[in-house]
Amino acid sequence: MQDLKPTPPDLPPDAPTFLRACWRQPVDHTPVWLMRQAGRYLPEYRAVRQKADFLTMCHRPELACEVTLQPIELLGVDAAILFSDLLIPLEAMGVTVKFPEGGPEITNGVTKADDVHRLQTPPAKDTLGYVAEACRLITAALPARIPLIGFAGAPFTLASYLVEGGGSKNYQKTKAFLYQHPKEAEVMFDKLVDMVADFLNMQIDAGCRAVQIFDSWAGALDPQDYERWGTQYTRRLVQKVRRPGVPVIVFAKGTGTYFDRVAASGADVLGVDWTLPLDAARGIVGPDFALQGNMDPIRLLCPWEHIRATADRILDAAGPLGHVFNLGHGLVPQTPPDHVKRLVAHVHEASAARHRAGI
Amino acid sequence: MQDLKPTPPDLPPDAPTFLRACWRQPVDHTPVWLMRQAGRYLPEYRAVRQKADFLTMCHRPELACEVTLQPIELLGVDAAILFSDLLIPLEAMGVTVKFPEGGPEITNGVTKADDVHRLQTPPAKDTLGYVAEACRLITAALPARIPLIGFAGAPFTLASYLVEGGGSKNYQKTKAFLYQHPKEAEVMFDKLVDMVADFLNMQIDAGCRAVQIFDSWAGALDPQDYERWGTQYTRRLVQKVRRPGVPVIVFAKGTGTYFDRVAASGADVLGVDWTLPLDAARGIVGPDFALQGNMDPIRLLCPWEHIRATADRILDAAGPLGHVFNLGHGLVPQTPPDHVKRLVAHVHEASAARHRAGI
Repeated sequence: MQDLKPTPPDLPPDAPTFLRACWRQPVDHTPVWLMRQAGRYLPEYRAVRQKADFLTMCHRPELACEVTLQPIELLGVDAAILFSDLLIPLEAMGVTVKFPEGGPEITNGVTKADDVHRLQTPPAKDTLGYVAEACRLITAALPARIPLIGFAGAPFTLASYLVEGGGSKNYQKTKAFLYQHPKEAEVMFDKLVDMVADFLNMQIDAGCRAVQIFDSWAGALDPQDYERWGTQYTRRLVQKVRRPGVPVIVFAKGTGTYFDRVAASGADVLGVDWTLPLDAARGIVGPDFALQGNMDPIRLLCPWEHIRATADRILDAAGPLGHVFNLGHGLVPQTPPDHVKRLVAHVHEASAARHRAGI
Repeated sequence: MQDLKPTPPDLPPDAPTFLRACWRQPVDHTPVWLMRQAGRYLPEYRAVRQKADFLTMCHRPELACEVTLQPIELLGVDAAILFSDLLIPLEAMGVTVKFPEGGPEITNGVTKADDVHRLQTPPAKDTLGYVAEACRLITAALPARIPLIGFAGAPFTLASYLVEGGGSKNYQKTKAFLYQHPKEAEVMFDKLVDMVADFLNMQIDAGCRAVQIFDSWAGALDPQDYERWGTQYTRRLVQKVRRPGVPVIVFAKGTGTYFDRVAASGADVLGVDWTLPLDAARGIVGPDFALQGNMDPIRLLCPWEHIRATADRILDAAGPLGHVFNLGHGLVPQTPPDHVKRLVAHVHEASAARHRAGI
């Protein structure tokens, strides 16, 4: 476990605020970025989306670059996150991915045990080079103070898409597969770790200064199953993408009752959803991790005063060191852009006052 | 709060095992019942279902009685639970409920703030008398050692059906309604408390010896919102249905990170899902509550050895007093009935050995 203990590298004093917070260094203001900050709630995004379907936007570097950059100017956030989708590396593994209105669909995923042997793990640069190209375009366009965050899905969440063939209410097929075919599940998870590690390393090589691993559906598991299929494989993935100075963020949604097992992944930064207050999260994991979160995105549909009070409560619970302000899930299309802008400005202002006062 | 502190009544020594466990009294074996134990996984249920659609089965006392009784003989469980649906009292409130294959649909629910004034709260006996009749038929047929559990939805979960018009992935419309129209939401929640309390009291009058309040979607809320819309209204509901010797069970799924606030509802028995181990739940709420749970229903799709090990782990975590064995959600249609039977038998046998040894 020792190699997994997050150790802050020597950071120059002018390092981007987002990276300083990831390494639990003092900051002038709490950095903020928002999951799905490049998304349908922005008219500017919808204008691009009118010209191309969702998958084309993921596939074409200049479009991915354009929408990735939009919220930087519009919102004033402290980090950019690559515009892409969790399912993109699954295409490279030989699976057909579609995005109709009702949600993602995988048409030739893993429905029986033998199917795992069909999954391929080609070099990311040969099959997903367009993502590297997008990262290069974006980092060339970003100001130095705004790092680009790369991302990918955690093995369990990607496996659940492969087995369910799309979204799910209770992840019944996935869990039944893990229970009934543990050996083949291990083959699938090994392949996912290899593919995703190579994919994330390619993103880092192409300029990403942090990476986030999304385990969006981890909360479907009980603590023992999370230990086996979450912690264990995510830890191997974290080890494979660890580079000096590049923080690894793990966001395992819905895992508040076994958050210690998420910390055992050895990530540098842990995402937290709105069901677990940040002071409680801190109490569980101790001082050696930065925390990222944790506003409910639906709160941005509230009147502004209510949003502001929630942001203040989150800043108070976070404490002075090692906090990246974010949501507990992605922004929804109905979010008023003005609320998002005001939130970012308020987090900057209110946190700066707190940091000056040393609280 | 003092009036809410659960106090065990004097129980005769031959009281049903299920009731003894609810009141945290010593038992010979841990009682077990399973959410949706009368359901599609049983061929005997499907045979009845072929003769009538789901809503008709809820509406016709003799059919509801027939399927409620099935698992008692077939499985050997220690309690019966009324066959019905959470949405049944919403019909009485003037809403149209349908159950097509894709899940429940409400066609004239609450889509704008003013709609809450349309909701009616007629006496349950005038509009839902068929449920009382089902309870009377069932309790007349049940052996004395098998209590019948009545049930209803908690205000938040019922409100979410009214506002979403069915199921939901993120409860966005419901939360937005609470945030944007808190006054009208209070009107709606007040009406739901009144309607559901009257409905549950009618079930108790008709022979139910315990009632369960399902807050199936409570886990969508953050701790502050749960406090306001969960704890507060559920507590009022619990107070309105409290009778000597009739335990009130509150099952608020997905609330493990703020389980203390579920306990603050003043229920006698707290349902626990599989994400929160029972020893952790006990650590949070102390000795004054019985706990009910907490196997993941999908685990019943595992090979038997795996199911048995999980059941043993749950019994060990539960400790000797105040445990009702159950699942953390309803049985799914794909469950092998034989696994369910073996689970019930194993819980009885393995817990009896533990209770004899005093562990």
